[in-house]
Parts: sequence; C-alpha cells; structure tokens
Amino acid sequence: MEKRLFSVERLEGFIRAVLGAFKIQEAHARICAARMIEADLRGMHGHGIFRLPGYVRRLEEGGYNLKPRIRAERETPVSALVDGDNGLGQVVVTFAAELAIRKARENGLAWIGIRHGNHAGCGGVYAALTLPHDLISMYMAVGNANHMPPWGGVDLLLSTNPIAYAIPAGKEPPIVLDIATTVASFGKVKVTAQRGEPLPVGWMIDGKGQPVTDPKRIHEGFLLPIGGHKGFGLNFIIGALAGVLNGARFGSEVIDFNKDFSMPTNSGQVFFAMRPDLFRDLDEFKAEMDVRIREIRNSTPMEGAEPIRLPGEMAVRRERQMRAEGIPVAPNVLDQLRQIARKLNLKDPLEEEQK
Amino acid sequence: MEKRLFSVERLEGFIRAVLGAFKIQEAHARICAARMIEADLRGMHGHGIFRLPGYVRRLEEGGYNLKPRIRAERETPVSALVDGDNGLGQVVVTFAAELAIRKARENGLAWIGIRHGNHAGCGGVYAALTLPHDLISMYMAVGNANHMPPWGGVDLLLSTNPIAYAIPAGKEPPIVLDIATTVASFGKVKVTAQRGEPLPVGWMIDGKGQPVTDPKRIHEGFLLPIGGHKGFGLNFIIGALAGVLNGARFGSEVIDFNKDFSMPTNSGQVFFAMRPDLFRDLDEFKAEMDVRIREIRNSTPMEGAEPIRLPGEMAVRRERQMRAEGIPVAPNVLDQLRQIARKLNLKDPLEEEQK
Repeated sequence: MEKRLFSVERLEGFIRAVLGAFKIQEAHARICAARMIEADLRGMHGHGIFRLPGYVRRLEEGGYNLKPRIRAERETPVSALVDGDNGLGQVVVTFAAELAIRKARENGLAWIGIRHGNHAGCGGVYAALTLPHDLISMYMAVGNANHMPPWGGVDLLLSTNPIAYAIPAGKEPPIVLDIATTVASFGKVKVTAQRGEPLPVGWMIDGKGQPVTDPKRIHEGFLLPIGGHKGFGLNFIIGALAGVLNGARFGSEVIDFNKDFSMPTNSGQVFFAMRPDLFRDLDEFKAEMDVRIREIRNSTPMEGAEPIRLPGEMAVRRERQMRAEGIPVAPNVLDQLRQIARKLNLKDPLEEEQK
Repeated sequence: MEKRLFSVERLEGFIRAVLGAFKIQEAHARICAARMIEADLRGMHGHGIFRLPGYVRRLEEGGYNLKPRIRAERETPVSALVDGDNGLGQVVVTFAAELAIRKARENGLAWIGIRHGNHAGCGGVYAALTLPHDLISMYMAVGNANHMPPWGGVDLLLSTNPIAYAIPAGKEPPIVLDIATTVASFGKVKVTAQRGEPLPVGWMIDGKGQPVTDPKRIHEGFLLPIGGHKGFGLNFIIGALAGVLNGARFGSEVIDFNKDFSMPTNSGQVFFAMRPDLFRDLDEFKAEMDVRIREIRNSTPMEGAEPIRLPGEMAVRRERQMRAEGIPVAPNVLDQLRQIARKLNLKDPLEEEQK
C-alpha cells in the first residue's frame, strides 16, 4: 500500500485533537503538534506523527503529567534549570529554548538545563528555533532507551544521546546538524530488519565483537558509537551534561520508554543559545558562512557520487516539497492513527479528502 | 635504538632554553613548555616535545610574533574574543582558558573565542585546566592542515578539527575527552606507514571511495570523518565556531603549518567554562558522576576484551607512571633536539645523566 499525503494543517489538527481528548491545555497541544510535524517536514519521520501512538499509550497509562507546571529554577542572567514537571517533552524543550533565546538576546548567551522532561523527538527542530533570531544553538539529550554498551563492553548502559547545532548563514540555507552519537538508531535498525534486508557492517556487533548483519539477529546485537571509543566518549559527555548535571536520568537509570509507559522518564536535555555578534559583526559572520558553505558545496564530488551537501540542506528542500505536496504517512502509521481516532471518538483522519 | 626517559624538569627546561634563545619572554616560554610536556604526560606524544622542531623552524622563518600583545576584545561578563597577536599557540589558549575560568567563577559560565592564534597541541591539556577549579570545560580548534574532503568529495578542505571536554568527578578520576573528528590523525597514518604496516580499513579512502591500506599509498588517500556524514557535520560546526565566528581561518584558507613556516596561521579556537552548581549542588553532582563512572567501569567487557575505561582514565595512569619513571623520547626526536641544541649553542639535552 502506498504512503498517503496529508497537509501540515490536517496532521497538526489531528494531533491537537488527540491531545485535547486527554484534557491537555490547548497551548501545549499546539506546541507539541508543531514540533512533531516540523520533524516530519525535515524528513525525520521517525520523530514525527509516527510517535503519536506511543505518546497516546503513555497518556493512557499515566506516564505524563497532564497539567504540568513547567518552570525555571536556579535562574541567572545566562542560565537556568528548567523543571519540566513531567510534561510533554516537546513542550518542555520549547519552553527551555524560548528562555535561552530571551536570555541570549539580552545577555549574549545562555545554557538551559532540563530535568523531569520527556522524549522530545528531533533535535534539529529545536536547534532551528534560534535561527529566526540569528542565534547559534546547541541541543543535547539523553536518549530514552539504552541500546549501546560502553566501548569494549556488552552491558546496555547508553542510549543514542544525540547532539544538534544550528548556525545562521546569509543567503545560503542555515547549517542544522542533528546527529545521534551511534552509527545507526535502533529505529533505523528495526525498519531495515522489518524489510528483511541485511544490516550494513558497522551498524551492530554481537557480544564477541563480530558484525551483526542478519536481520533476524538484531536482538542479539548492540548499536555502535560513531568513531569507536570517540563516539562512546562523546555519548558519555552528553549523558553527563544533559543528564547528571540536571539531576535527570542517565546510564542504568534510564527508563525504556518503549517498554514502560507509566513511570516518569525524568528525561534530561540541554539547550544553549548564543549571539554571533559577541565575536564578529553579524553580517560579516553570515557572509563568511556563505563563502565556506559554497566552497564545500561546489567542491569536487567523488567519482560517480552525488553533489556535496551541507548539514541541514536537504531538510530545507524536503520541507519545501512537503509543504507543497503534503507529508507522507506510512500505511501502518495511518492504521494506528485511525484506531486512535475511533477509540477517542475523533474524526477519522482519512475521512476528509486527501491533500 | 630504544626510547630514552627524561624528567619533566629536564624537558621543560630544554624547551624554555630554546624559546629563550629566540628572545621569547620567560613567562611565555614557561607556559608553552608546561603545556607541551603536559601533552606528553597524558600520553599524547604527538603534541609534546615532538613538536619542538616544527615550532623552532617557524620561529626561525618568522612565522611567530616573538613579542605578541595577547589581549581580550569585545568583552562581556560571559564572553570575549581573544586576539593572540600571532603568539605561541599554547600561550594564547592558556590566556583564553584563564580568562574563561575567571569569568565562569564570577558569572557562571564563559565562552572565549580566539583568533590570530597558532597550533596549540593537545586539547585535553587545555580542557583539564578547569578541573582544579571544579569547572566543566569545552575546547574546539580548527586543525592546522587540511587532510580531509567534505563527505562524498575529494577536495581537501577540512582538517582534523578536534573537540575536548573536561568534567569533574568526586573520588574517581575526572572525565577528559579529547577527540579529533577524523577516525585517525594524519600523524598516526604517517607513523603507521613509516613502520611499513598496512593501515586498518576505515582510516583512509581514495578518490573512488575505496579503502587505502597500502602504506605506500597514503599520499593518494584522504582521512575519514567519524561516523561518515555525522563526523563531517561536526567537523564543519567546529570549523564555523572556532574559525569563522572568530575571524580565524577555516576551509580553503587554512595554512598548512607543516609546509609553510613563515605565514601567520591565524588559527582559531574556542574555550568554554561553566560552573556545575548553576544546575545542581557541586558535591551532589560529583558524587553522581562517580556512580555513573563506576557502573561503566565495572560493567561486563566483551569476550576476551580488556576492562572498560572511561575517557581520561588512561591519561591519569600514564602521568603517574611518567612522573615516576620519566617521559620517553623517541630516538629520532632526540636527534632533532640535539641538532637544535648545537645550532642554538645550548647544552646538549643528552649530556646530563638520564633520569
């Protein structure tokens, strides 16, 4: 069955209706829907509306605080600890990002730690929030399920712990990098295995350090960090800064949000924002970013390879295309959305005509 | 011929004498010598006294400003742009680190950009400077020679662009991570090739994307980023933040400091420092760092593998050993140091008894 295409408005409206059915306040539902669909628009469908069924199960089983009092504690002019009060992850990180933006505009830069948050989806979506303000950003998160052992080990103590950055440019698309510190995400592994395709060497190893490529063996395998011990180190640093420093869970204490839908996850994240003109006049900085971006894009590709792309470039093209043609939703996801609609007595998302 | 062992005092004294012969002020010579030998003591011999012959050639050929006026510009309570005035890289980064430490102690955190610096060696050495002050740190640098193309390309526009972090712990050794964003450094490739050993798959590829393993073919090869497009992206972000943002060189403008010894390199770096107690009481934070460190160290190693190590743990052990037994200096490096001594009419570093 083919993927079907829906407009931004239709998908956001459906998410808002679902969250509203759980009595989540309209402002929170609106933010959560926007961030989820922004992930789809960047092409990061694994963090888009695809996540709604999991969030709904967590809402049903009491894993979220439906009326959170999200607040800034330990505030200084350039920092704060945001307590998410176990609200929707998207809403908590957006609160932190907006606080960082306000403080960075006033005082140059700001580092906001988050505790008692939840899975917030696509890091690039948050990093990009600073771009309309011409601010640089950095986002880090403790992932919500441990699928990686320490380098040289076999115990699953680490998650994908992603890091994202956004840097403004002039006439070129801004740079937005959004990477897990694992070579592949567990989601990507599962999708490949479900198709019955072998995994590329380098995605997973078994307890003896041998590559796992057989799609039937993925549950014996571990994810691998980027660059071996380097990615392990970076993953641990992100865990320490986004988790331990904020009093959020990291290591053996991480709640697997795909298995436990009622225990608060106490997810930790970091959001950092900074004005480029602390160091260089903004226009000059943006103009030189354009020069560096262009020299890379126009450099020689490998024999037979595609033109070279900068981080975030494809996301801009994908968004343009999806805003014009609609956002694709996979058949199995659509089935789940329809089940949710029936259960909550909402309008079937398929009922109206397709965009 | 075997490596010979020398005391910290002997090697630092020799570096100070060499820099003194070029009329570099005593305070600068002392800092430069300390940072270089701290690299050796961490086991990062590629950034220790091994670098002195290259620095001497740059001093001889006019590549350094011998009387730099290193200064902070565009200062705010939490940021500054340090102009290194083309002084010794080690001295400029130390100036920036000390400024970051002072500002972070007073105002919580500080981001210091550097321009008109030079090659500064081992990032972990600088990151570790915050640890006696119980501060978290981050260091980033634009590398001083381009050996890597953009992902999917063949033009050498990128260097190893390293990133380093230090995070205090309680009773455990602090975490110090110091990684290039390439899988291997070009130095490591050269050393392996000089031994006539094949390169491991994953260190280098050729213009068709095929692995280069033949030690005779390293000059046809390119370095690879950690995690493919992910490491490329991170490398570019570091270049933008440590280079472009500070008005320092990045991309095609980088001066290859192994080929050109007279042109100022205008190297760029970033030094960031932050107080953990912005987010959590210091003792509580350090105690939980210990818990997370221990659960990883005590976790199960892969079959037949060594016990698991945390970033920076080996450096502490190596330093203890070298302070007791001496720092090893390779025969070819020693030959070069003796030549420098003869040329500058200094005492032969071998003349006195070995430690």
